[in-house]
Amino acid sequence: MPGIVTLTTDFGDRDGYVGAMKGVILSRAPGVTLVDITHAVPPYDVAAAANALADAAPYFPPGTVHVAVVDPGVGGARAAVVVAARGHLFVGPDNGIFALAAPHPDAIHAIAEPDFRRAPVAATFHGRDVFAPTAAQLALGAPPSAAGPAVALRGRLELAAGDRVVHVDRFGNLVTDIAGVPAAATVRIAGRAIPGVSLTYESVAPGELVAYVGSRGTIEIAVREGSAAELLGAGRGTAVEIDAEVDTA
Amino acid sequence: MPGIVTLTTDFGDRDGYVGAMKGVILSRAPGVTLVDITHAVPPYDVAAAANALADAAPYFPPGTVHVAVVDPGVGGARAAVVVAARGHLFVGPDNGIFALAAPHPDAIHAIAEPDFRRAPVAATFHGRDVFAPTAAQLALGAPPSAAGPAVALRGRLELAAGDRVVHVDRFGNLVTDIAGVPAAATVRIAGRAIPGVSLTYESVAPGELVAYVGSRGTIEIAVREGSAAELLGAGRGTAVEIDAEVDTA
Amino acid sequence: MPGIVTLTTDFGDRDGYVGAMKGVILSRAPGVTLVDITHAVPPYDVAAAANALADAAPYFPPGTVHVAVVDPGVGGARAAVVVAARGHLFVGPDNGIFALAAPHPDAIHAIAEPDFRRAPVAATFHGRDVFAPTAAQLALGAPPSAAGPAVALRGRLELAAGDRVVHVDRFGNLVTDIAGVPAAATVRIAGRAIPGVSLTYESVAPGELVAYVGSRGTIEIAVREGSAAELLGAGRGTAVEIDAEVDTA
Repeated sequence: MPGIVTLTTDFGDRDGYVGAMKGVILSRAPGVTLVDITHAVPPYDVAAAANALADAAPYFPPGTVHVAVVDPGVGGARAAVVVAARGHLFVGPDNGIFALAAPHPDAIHAIAEPDFRRAPVAATFHGRDVFAPTAAQLALGAPPSAAGPAVALRGRLELAAGDRVVHVDRFGNLVTDIAGVPAAATVRIAGRAIPGVSLTYESVAPGELVAYVGSRGTIEIAVREGSAAELLGAGRGTAVEIDAEVDTA
Repeated sequence: MPGIVTLTTDFGDRDGYVGAMKGVILSRAPGVTLVDITHAVPPYDVAAAANALADAAPYFPPGTVHVAVVDPGVGGARAAVVVAARGHLFVGPDNGIFALAAPHPDAIHAIAEPDFRRAPVAATFHGRDVFAPTAAQLALGAPPSAAGPAVALRGRLELAAGDRVVHVDRFGNLVTDIAGVPAAATVRIAGRAIPGVSLTYESVAPGELVAYVGSRGTIEIAVREGSAAELLGAGRGTAVEIDAEVDTA
Repeated sequence: MPGIVTLTTDFGDRDGYVGAMKGVILSRAPGVTLVDITHAVPPYDVAAAANALADAAPYFPPGTVHVAVVDPGVGGARAAVVVAARGHLFVGPDNGIFALAAPHPDAIHAIAEPDFRRAPVAATFHGRDVFAPTAAQLALGAPPSAAGPAVALRGRLELAAGDRVVHVDRFGNLVTDIAGVPAAATVRIAGRAIPGVSLTYESVAPGELVAYVGSRGTIEIAVREGSAAELLGAGRGTAVEIDAEVDTA
């Protein structure tokens, strides 16, 4: 059975670019299952794409091919790569986009072989001309080593230092990178102290701040039926402090 | 052949949450066909989700599984349910979200059995950990009764009283809950009187108001090649009056 | 194996309309592969839909059925058609929407036969009641001639005269209709002169204007890691001038 290919890009929802990529994949790997992760990554925001992919990829079956294209350096010096990790394959530019979903790769190969590229390759659209054909080959069962020589990753994801908001989701929930917080801790952010780590939103009244362990396993801060990002004026990079002593203020 | 699973959520298009749900479904029910109804339901707007689902669900083949997750009460007291109605299966929180698509259920079961849940279940993401695995089981052919004990629905959809706008669509068309209106009636809304129920938008000039029987079988009010919501300052809940006498004003 | 059906509409992402179309298609052509090109075409903007379809359609395999519904004249006098071109089939209103993707049709048929329509047909939703059933029939292998009699296209796409911006993409890149420009030419737009046609965005510093041959094979104007539309105040219809002499200013 042909495999699954997921797509994560900053191409938005208005243009024909995502459709072109899907057409290339379906032409070369008939019967493949295509799944959109998101195409609403803010333009050039590699970290946002890395976050979305890290939230979704682990739940797909082994062998799934994840294509991610947020690629300000397209056509320039950055490499095009296949990364094997955790039984999945990741296809995209070497710019850190897989750092969260595939932090410890088992293998990395450059995309060099003719079967893995359209000819000619448009210098501004490797999504269609390099990454889509590569995804098709991998979904058909080609091993990553068939794409080209083994290489090392050079791209680095620029992330704020630890203990910060790393993602603001659609609801205005603030996702942090802080795990292992005791239930009695106080979570401090933007001048506010949230006493205790709750189990659900319903621990507080609508409109109130709540801290809890989110679906990613880290501390999140939300407003029940509202937006914590808005209430606190917080966003990606906002510092979060954990006070493991019970708040007595 | 594995079945069809549709998805309706307020998760938006930026995050990895929908992708995580799809990964879970495809991992447990390989080959299933996934169809997005919408993920752009305004946050927590159960009525908007109920409307979108009611517009789309009836056109799917028998046996289709419809997952809908607009769930402000996630992790709290509300039940997680499977609803069987009209030969389709509906999976989601018991908060009224299926009231329009499945008004007269044939069977309702709580989601309780281990095969229908991931372990552990994140208290804030039942979409991924409860509803997605349940959809997979049903798409594979499990009967709703396998999910858990029969229960009664407790959630109620809060809707405005009759004779109102129940939905504003993307074009600014105002969809009402009023059916069976004679062609010669006058439709009154927001201080305006629209004489006669037309068959198509082309009955009036571009920019003009028109009332017609919409694709849902109820009266709709539109501006040809424009937005009735904008022109009239109308929205969900705006009262609509039908005057079956021909307007002589 | 059942075929591929792509969808391009101005139905947006909030309503159940696209889902209804997909339900109809899957009910009549089980196992078909559905691919969204875009549903974010601005309301009634036939040219934008024509552009998106032209960017995506050529990359799909032979036999693909492309449904496009941007249809201000729905229910009125415009015909509903199947267009065969380049080994693909196009289904939608006769209003010029296929002019860019299928400029030289091999055959055109009206949609008239009962198998190609639901009964009754809602005058305001041919997407669901005419175009979706037609796409299903074609995906199952019916020839275009089975839909109805051969007809001529009457709809014309209103496009600005040549040497203009024809599309602004998500990144604010300005796509023109100008091909075959020498590398040493100067591209003039909105009072600015861009010296030389580059190969990639990386030819200039971030924030700088660059002209290059885009993925469509025509000249595009971009700002590296920024928006040319915003910087230049340019949009669809903005004039572009090519000066094949090297700029000496």
